[in-house]
Amino acid sequence: MFGVTILGNNSALPAYDRHPTAQIVTIGDQLILIDCGEGTQTQLAKYKIRRSKINHILISHLHGDHYFGLPGLITSMGLLGRQNDLHLYAPAALENIIQLQLKAGSTDLPFQLHFHALENFENILIDDPKFSVKLFPVEHRIPCWGFIIKEKRMPRKINKEAVIAYHIPAAYYEALQKGEDYTNKEGTVIANELLTNPNKPAKSYAYCADTRYTPENAIVCEGASLLYHETTYLQNCEHKALVRYHSTTIQAATFAAKAQVKKLIIGHFSSKYEQLEEFLKETQPIFPNTDLAIEGVTYLV
Amino acid sequence: MFGVTILGNNSALPAYDRHPTAQIVTIGDQLILIDCGEGTQTQLAKYKIRRSKINHILISHLHGDHYFGLPGLITSMGLLGRQNDLHLYAPAALENIIQLQLKAGSTDLPFQLHFHALENFENILIDDPKFSVKLFPVEHRIPCWGFIIKEKRMPRKINKEAVIAYHIPAAYYEALQKGEDYTNKEGTVIANELLTNPNKPAKSYAYCADTRYTPENAIVCEGASLLYHETTYLQNCEHKALVRYHSTTIQAATFAAKAQVKKLIIGHFSSKYEQLEEFLKETQPIFPNTDLAIEGVTYLV
Repeated sequence: MFGVTILGNNSALPAYDRHPTAQIVTIGDQLILIDCGEGTQTQLAKYKIRRSKINHILISHLHGDHYFGLPGLITSMGLLGRQNDLHLYAPAALENIIQLQLKAGSTDLPFQLHFHALENFENILIDDPKFSVKLFPVEHRIPCWGFIIKEKRMPRKINKEAVIAYHIPAAYYEALQKGEDYTNKEGTVIANELLTNPNKPAKSYAYCADTRYTPENAIVCEGASLLYHETTYLQNCEHKALVRYHSTTIQAATFAAKAQVKKLIIGHFSSKYEQLEEFLKETQPIFPNTDLAIEGVTYLV
Repeated sequence: MFGVTILGNNSALPAYDRHPTAQIVTIGDQLILIDCGEGTQTQLAKYKIRRSKINHILISHLHGDHYFGLPGLITSMGLLGRQNDLHLYAPAALENIIQLQLKAGSTDLPFQLHFHALENFENILIDDPKFSVKLFPVEHRIPCWGFIIKEKRMPRKINKEAVIAYHIPAAYYEALQKGEDYTNKEGTVIANELLTNPNKPAKSYAYCADTRYTPENAIVCEGASLLYHETTYLQNCEHKALVRYHSTTIQAATFAAKAQVKKLIIGHFSSKYEQLEEFLKETQPIFPNTDLAIEGVTYLV
């Protein structure tokens, strides 16, 4: 499974039972938490997501609605006896804040917390056997990063009948799965395409964090299976979006179209909007395959 | 009105829709927030308590379940355009944590935040015309303080018939209300008791924070109209309470009886308990006028 579960879809202030930003990305047996607004640990419990399965946490920037839930989540993990290492990827200034909070509470975590400052990475943030996480800068009032989580290319599938017919030794199957051709004792090259079939294409999720409309970033997110782009405001607040370093519906949809992604989800709604239908109405004419990021819903990548 | 509204009654971990510690004390037209666990701003909204009315926040100690909601509350107050000064009374180490968080987010609050380190006070923390707040150390794993909020003595009530009969000039009424006698032109002293009647006695609320059973503190809370004492555990966990610097039902009730308070409310329940009836069953035989501190309920002082 590769999917994104929304835990919070509201901007700065919690309102209308909508919460500040947090998302869980499930990729295989791994859970990655992206941003961690206040109350994230309660949202995880509400949607029965096991926090013990979270090994990586990515924090896009240090506005409170994206990380004020983190100290509580970390200390709760400790109280619950977590032992697995936890990797936290965030702007450098967060390390000192967390350490001061742990020190003030005389808290010794029973697990290793590894801090990775986003400033130290240029492209690849995580290189796991099954997926990679890349980061890219977005344009916000303070330093802020987006993330792209991508499956590793799936191995090609062995064509069982073909490998028997061509007398390929089983020891060579792994090389075939990687796409290599086979050369037999007689020196004849048998093309990989004759021996294997392509697997499903690798999918990717692009998370654009809090950002002004930045068309230059469309190339970074190009072809993503799923794109999350913030829409703090409706179209008629374009000027407000500009000065507050946020985006509108139209801008998110235009970005998605430019990046030629398969699907778009939108969120980070301003607390001034109680109803959200208008967000879809403005976005879909430009990018039809758009959904609202609704809390508790999992969107498949 | 002098009352205490419970916003969170659970210990360290949120559970069973119970939240970490936070209480609002309403005294006249003032709201005082005591402790501010994660999610306090949401609880304030849920119970329709106007955060703009809060001018004083008291933080008992720096375990996260007593202050992780504070950065969110403060920044939300800023986003909502608060202009009134806000006074924060807390252990000294919190000042740097809050300042780092504001700096990391490039947040300029539109109001003055005055930080008062509890370590700098010996007895009186706040001396308002209508009430006082005293602090006292309690016994916890890290430095921790309890608070006593007390009304100022109410002025005596003028006995209208008596002041006319004794020809007391109106300019002297204020002195009478303060309890002074009146001496007339002939040099005769007219006792205050003849001219005024006593007002209602001043009430007080004692908040014992997170604490081991500390009978020596009973004298500090003596005669309080309302006492909050933590009961993290039932009686059979007395040893656990001791080593974790918390209290049991029996200990809270014994403390209340020793302090001869009028009424006791108990809270800070461990997340191991889903049902709370047993807490009352164990407490009331020793101190009958006990209530559970239930979220959303206001207990009159």
